[in-house]
Amino acid sequence: MGVYAGTFDPVTNGHLDILKRSLQIFDRVVVAVAQSTPKKTFFSLEERVEMLKIAASDIANVEIIPFSGLLVDFARKIGAVAVVRGLRVVSDFEYEFQMALMNRRLSDDVETVFLMPSEEYTYLSSSLVLEIAVAGGDVSQFVPAVVASKLGERFGERGDGK
Amino acid sequence: MGVYAGTFDPVTNGHLDILKRSLQIFDRVVVAVAQSTPKKTFFSLEERVEMLKIAASDIANVEIIPFSGLLVDFARKIGAVAVVRGLRVVSDFEYEFQMALMNRRLSDDVETVFLMPSEEYTYLSSSLVLEIAVAGGDVSQFVPAVVASKLGERFGERGDGK
Amino acid sequence: MGVYAGTFDPVTNGHLDILKRSLQIFDRVVVAVAQSTPKKTFFSLEERVEMLKIAASDIANVEIIPFSGLLVDFARKIGAVAVVRGLRVVSDFEYEFQMALMNRRLSDDVETVFLMPSEEYTYLSSSLVLEIAVAGGDVSQFVPAVVASKLGERFGERGDGK
Amino acid sequence: MGVYAGTFDPVTNGHLDILKRSLQIFDRVVVAVAQSTPKKTFFSLEERVEMLKIAASDIANVEIIPFSGLLVDFARKIGAVAVVRGLRVVSDFEYEFQMALMNRRLSDDVETVFLMPSEEYTYLSSSLVLEIAVAGGDVSQFVPAVVASKLGERFGERGDGK
Amino acid sequence: MGVYAGTFDPVTNGHLDILKRSLQIFDRVVVAVAQSTPKKTFFSLEERVEMLKIAASDIANVEIIPFSGLLVDFARKIGAVAVVRGLRVVSDFEYEFQMALMNRRLSDDVETVFLMPSEEYTYLSSSLVLEIAVAGGDVSQFVPAVVASKLGERFGERGDGK
Amino acid sequence: MGVYAGTFDPVTNGHLDILKRSLQIFDRVVVAVAQSTPKKTFFSLEERVEMLKIAASDIANVEIIPFSGLLVDFARKIGAVAVVRGLRVVSDFEYEFQMALMNRRLSDDVETVFLMPSEEYTYLSSSLVLEIAVAGGDVSQFVPAVVASKLGERFGERGDGK
Repeated sequence: MGVYAGTFDPVTNGHLDILKRSLQIFDRVVVAVAQSTPKKTFFSLEERVEMLKIAASDIANVEIIPFSGLLVDFARKIGAVAVVRGLRVVSDFEYEFQMALMNRRLSDDVETVFLMPSEEYTYLSSSLVLEIAVAGGDVSQFVPAVVASKLGERFGERGDGK
Repeated sequence: MGVYAGTFDPVTNGHLDILKRSLQIFDRVVVAVAQSTPKKTFFSLEERVEMLKIAASDIANVEIIPFSGLLVDFARKIGAVAVVRGLRVVSDFEYEFQMALMNRRLSDDVETVFLMPSEEYTYLSSSLVLEIAVAGGDVSQFVPAVVASKLGERFGERGDGK
Repeated sequence: MGVYAGTFDPVTNGHLDILKRSLQIFDRVVVAVAQSTPKKTFFSLEERVEMLKIAASDIANVEIIPFSGLLVDFARKIGAVAVVRGLRVVSDFEYEFQMALMNRRLSDDVETVFLMPSEEYTYLSSSLVLEIAVAGGDVSQFVPAVVASKLGERFGERGDGK
Repeated sequence: MGVYAGTFDPVTNGHLDILKRSLQIFDRVVVAVAQSTPKKTFFSLEERVEMLKIAASDIANVEIIPFSGLLVDFARKIGAVAVVRGLRVVSDFEYEFQMALMNRRLSDDVETVFLMPSEEYTYLSSSLVLEIAVAGGDVSQFVPAVVASKLGERFGERGDGK
Repeated sequence: MGVYAGTFDPVTNGHLDILKRSLQIFDRVVVAVAQSTPKKTFFSLEERVEMLKIAASDIANVEIIPFSGLLVDFARKIGAVAVVRGLRVVSDFEYEFQMALMNRRLSDDVETVFLMPSEEYTYLSSSLVLEIAVAGGDVSQFVPAVVASKLGERFGERGDGK
Repeated sequence: MGVYAGTFDPVTNGHLDILKRSLQIFDRVVVAVAQSTPKKTFFSLEERVEMLKIAASDIANVEIIPFSGLLVDFARKIGAVAVVRGLRVVSDFEYEFQMALMNRRLSDDVETVFLMPSEEYTYLSSSLVLEIAVAGGDVSQFVPAVVASKLGERFGERGDGK
């Protein structure tokens, strides 16, 4: 079993792409949604989990679980052999490596596995999606429908590409 | 026509260098000053536009215009064929590419063009200028006179190199 | 007028993408094919020029010209205001910046303009195409038909996706 | 099953570290040794395979197999679900991503999985090992004993740390 | 004499590693603790200085001094010939270069010298340490004992690896 | 004492800049010219040493010495406390770090110190100088006079800016 961990603030089509790819490697994947992060999240933990559950409802062998505390402790507790992370750009790479090496120090029995999203998602990040939504742009091609409509509610836009 | 967009918080000599270079490519350049950004700006929109107008007053074929909303919408509205961006360092490169690819998705008819500042400006950024000014340093060699004197007012320094 | 310079050994769909984008900025673009490079080329200058001429035959306002000597001298001689370069990855970025700064030192009146290919071409390079062709792979989705068939001749493969 | 592919010219302790880590993810791993590369190898294919076989003889569920042609074709033929690659530094990252995206284009059913070596191996590469051996240095702390003694034979050094 | 400057919020084993290495180059090193930074610090200036003093108490020829204002002014005032900085990752590299070039402009007689920590510390940063401590993790292997116990007080953990 | 090591094929103004800066840190600097490199050099060892001797003749406390074998062995033999390296760009950074970590493994008592050239030399490399000279360009602004005239002899150009 693998753990795909992140903030998912909000989940994008790039996250779903990585999730599906991780299921080619692992028979089952737990999506671990981080309760808190150094930066305040835009959506609440409940909202982030809820959107993921709806967006991933048609993907088999996936479970969405919030977590707090250290990721490696969570991974060990649920019996995962590896943490899955998506890599898009060089700056991802460095931060991810720091985290992965730190995690390895904290718990040597959980490996970190990096997957690469489809090239159409290399530019995509949750924060860019939020920036565009704040500026009144249509984000429906970048995120699942549930996220587009939620962002539409917040910013007074339909958010469905119309 | 090209659009040179940014926050210009505050405009530096590096920005003016890119602006002049963009006029070798485009007959006319609109400097688009972003109203709001994810991070709070140090100077107000009015101040940033005002400083740019004074600093660029001797450069022909330039217009300074504030904008809100999506840059691609603004570019299309004023009939620009391209967005101009300055690239200095690798981390610029990645952020800029993400933005440019996202913008292309949002509007395929506005191209993004990257220019390289003179090597003496590769180290220069608005945020470093602000850091130095806050620490009581003299920034007059990095920014136009109007910015140096404005920063001097704020931080109780003459800011003109004396 | 812009100059899009390179070795084009061989031309790929990514090169054609950049060429088309450069025509949104410049009314006319000269594709300058470098005669010699530090590394020996796989195709001769004549072959590289010939393949480009066929591949770009349906793009208006383009001329294919071989050149030797310094690019900036060539650009100045034909009256170009800028050199066009495609940027895909961070390592491109650094090499390109070194070249562009060096060129600026050699001739201050020719600007370098960087364009970004479509994200589906960010992974694509002439050398990877050659590697795949050498290994017996089908490269027809990465290069124009004339290049695929030329590579097929060399490597005893049809090279047209069959 | 995973495929850990490379040139292994020669195999280093860093390669063995990645191999062991990949066995936390996959029940069985085939080490695919590339027959030819764009650059000429220092050791012959037979030597590279032989050294790997000796060095990995105590690791269970591993098979060493030479291959030629495209890696994705090989992976598909032996029924592997993923290609394993080690990532150490940023320049690895970019080359690896180009290869992985190209491979995905060539065959969408083989995923690429990136693993991170122990931090003590981040500096280690086959080419640095060869450089040190050529310069008469002792490489026995960087490579398996079989490689150290083979390099010792070639360069007239005992190569065993004495 | 060299100046090793930073925020040290809090000091890590990686900082102490760089400090010791700098004493192979300089006969005496002043550790300059920055009073304020663009980001708010977690520990007060007094705490940061105090922890450094305890952690470095057994290293000869070191003095811990807080400073405000520009680092180059401080360095010149105390008669240092160089500023020492640790480099771990590419993103460090770029920020550090910008700072160093800016500092050189502000004061040409203070050189910046970059040292590389032991590879076991390349992943280590004060902010990652704080993240782990906040998440309830044990950071005692990453920081001096005084810091581990201080973090333990704050986060209700013993923080000493038990 | 410091050792500034390299191939110097040929020495550029950027190398001389780093050499002078290293003398702000070390009382004496030995310039160690590598006899052989993985890549064949353009100039012979004798030529490279000779050009350096002429170019650095007016810099006090400098000695030019060719070396073969491992740099760390050479450094230890002459009693140097540190190896000096210039860092210009991110790709330098990674290669240099690999070398420095490897060297540290081979000999823990020789530290590696990185210095940054003046920003006007960040684009400058020996290989770019050779490329320009080969293409018939004037390199006299990038290299010492002795190198410009030597390159002029080879390529049938005066090479002194005329």
